Amino acid sequence: MVVGPGQDCAVLQTDAALWLLTIDALVAGVHFAPEWLSPRQLGRKSFLVNASDIAAMGGQPRFCVVNFSVPPAYRERDLRALQQGIVAAGRECGAAVVGGNLTRATQLSITIALLGTAPRRIVTRQGARPGDHVFVTGTLGDAALAVRSLRRGDTPVTANLQRRFREPAPRLRAGRILAEMGIVSAMIDVSDGLVQDLGHICTESRVGAVLRPAAVPLSPAYRKRCGSDLRLALQGGEDYELLCTVPEGNVKMLQRQRARLGCPITCIGTITGGRRLRLLDAEGRTLQLDTHGFDHFRT
Amino acid sequence: MVVGPGQDCAVLQTDAALWLLTIDALVAGVHFAPEWLSPRQLGRKSFLVNASDIAAMGGQPRFCVVNFSVPPAYRERDLRALQQGIVAAGRECGAAVVGGNLTRATQLSITIALLGTAPRRIVTRQGARPGDHVFVTGTLGDAALAVRSLRRGDTPVTANLQRRFREPAPRLRAGRILAEMGIVSAMIDVSDGLVQDLGHICTESRVGAVLRPAAVPLSPAYRKRCGSDLRLALQGGEDYELLCTVPEGNVKMLQRQRARLGCPITCIGTITGGRRLRLLDAEGRTLQLDTHGFDHFRT
Repeated sequence: MVVGPGQDCAVLQTDAALWLLTIDALVAGVHFAPEWLSPRQLGRKSFLVNASDIAAMGGQPRFCVVNFSVPPAYRERDLRALQQGIVAAGRECGAAVVGGNLTRATQLSITIALLGTAPRRIVTRQGARPGDHVFVTGTLGDAALAVRSLRRGDTPVTANLQRRFREPAPRLRAGRILAEMGIVSAMIDVSDGLVQDLGHICTESRVGAVLRPAAVPLSPAYRKRCGSDLRLALQGGEDYELLCTVPEGNVKMLQRQRARLGCPITCIGTITGGRRLRLLDAEGRTLQLDTHGFDHFRT
Repeated sequence: MVVGPGQDCAVLQTDAALWLLTIDALVAGVHFAPEWLSPRQLGRKSFLVNASDIAAMGGQPRFCVVNFSVPPAYRERDLRALQQGIVAAGRECGAAVVGGNLTRATQLSITIALLGTAPRRIVTRQGARPGDHVFVTGTLGDAALAVRSLRRGDTPVTANLQRRFREPAPRLRAGRILAEMGIVSAMIDVSDGLVQDLGHICTESRVGAVLRPAAVPLSPAYRKRCGSDLRLALQGGEDYELLCTVPEGNVKMLQRQRARLGCPITCIGTITGGRRLRLLDAEGRTLQLDTHGFDHFRT
């Protein structure tokens, strides 16, 4: 960075010529209840959900700018904690906060625009082909389960579950390896829920998919609380895991890289011709699903 | 642009290695009343206030990402008009909208992050030196006058005045010439009001200034309505003109470039030692001012 915060613009200089640019907002009452997150945690999360978009393209976060829309009663020390959370999460991911804007509003919201360097091979949502295997990192449904518990207030939420909601772990390392080595044909981060985000890959790639719910990776906490009810894992959202498609010929390469990814990766389905997304249950029966899913947290 | 909207990130490629990055938000009830601007005008303005920050650094807008925070009742055709306004204003300024995000909120707000290429010589708010002349482009106070009239609802506002509020004209051409030719020692855009923004230059450059109110450029509409009352011109805000400091040795170069700037430019004061911002009235008397000014639209 040549010129930092406090000017009309930050000035950025680098050798890399290919950039990623993304924007995302967290709004109080829509994406979180203020009592669910400390200001510092909220700052961290605001950055991390953006970093997850960079991870989904295989890139490396570098620079971000932040807009704070803040109610008049919001305390200055909370605003400082918010900022510190963003800066800390940015630093951990290799990115600098280079500018910001502060405005009044009735509703607290944090909007971050994040600029990252792109991998040598660009991966989009558009490259999936019939026959490709569908993989997902980590476990699904934990953040949605934490939100449901926080919302009902009737179930004590374990620290691990809370963390899955409060502190997404963008899969930057996995994303970079999967993209740069040319292992994946399409990739997206799971923010709206598995079914909806796999639907995005299908729509953009003009293909269909078969999903095997029994193969969807679940945490022990999820199994304990939800048993065989997979709704939150399939449609909950806010997982911030990577969902990708791998051509048959690349599966061996994926197996060789598996230990380097920094997270588990699990095969959960197959890309098909046609344009439908189907669920194959444990008995091999096909159940048609609404590919739009539903916006779990936002309605 | 290599990859456009609809992915997790936009992918950008260019030869230039030096970038400017800025973010700004317009919030309903804070920066505007919905009845003051059509959705398309609001979209245009959202882009143009960001472009003004790029102009203040002498840069060229290139790529932007947009966050829309939208109440549930907001009509889809208004959202489309908003988007079209941003795209149109971007295109006129040489920039492409490469991504976006849509979220619910109680209050309409538009946040834009704009990436621009930097000029060969970077200009900041920090280079002003005692003896430098203070210049400002265009005329001041018109947007504040338009807002006051719209707010009171008691004075018919002329189309020209309305335009100064609705459609800021970022001084991109003037900014580029002033920066690239090394004419100015410091520059900022006047968004918070002349006194406050000159205060920013003084603080960042660790200097003071003498301002001559009688020299502040006013439009015929402003003179007609406000006579000798200069409060809106000095402290009104939302002018989106360029305020810059020019070393004595560069004044002749400025005069030679004047016709190319695309707007008038007027000398309104001088940078001094010390750290105070003083007003010199028509009779040569000094009046001390609160350099913080006041946040006219926002309180």
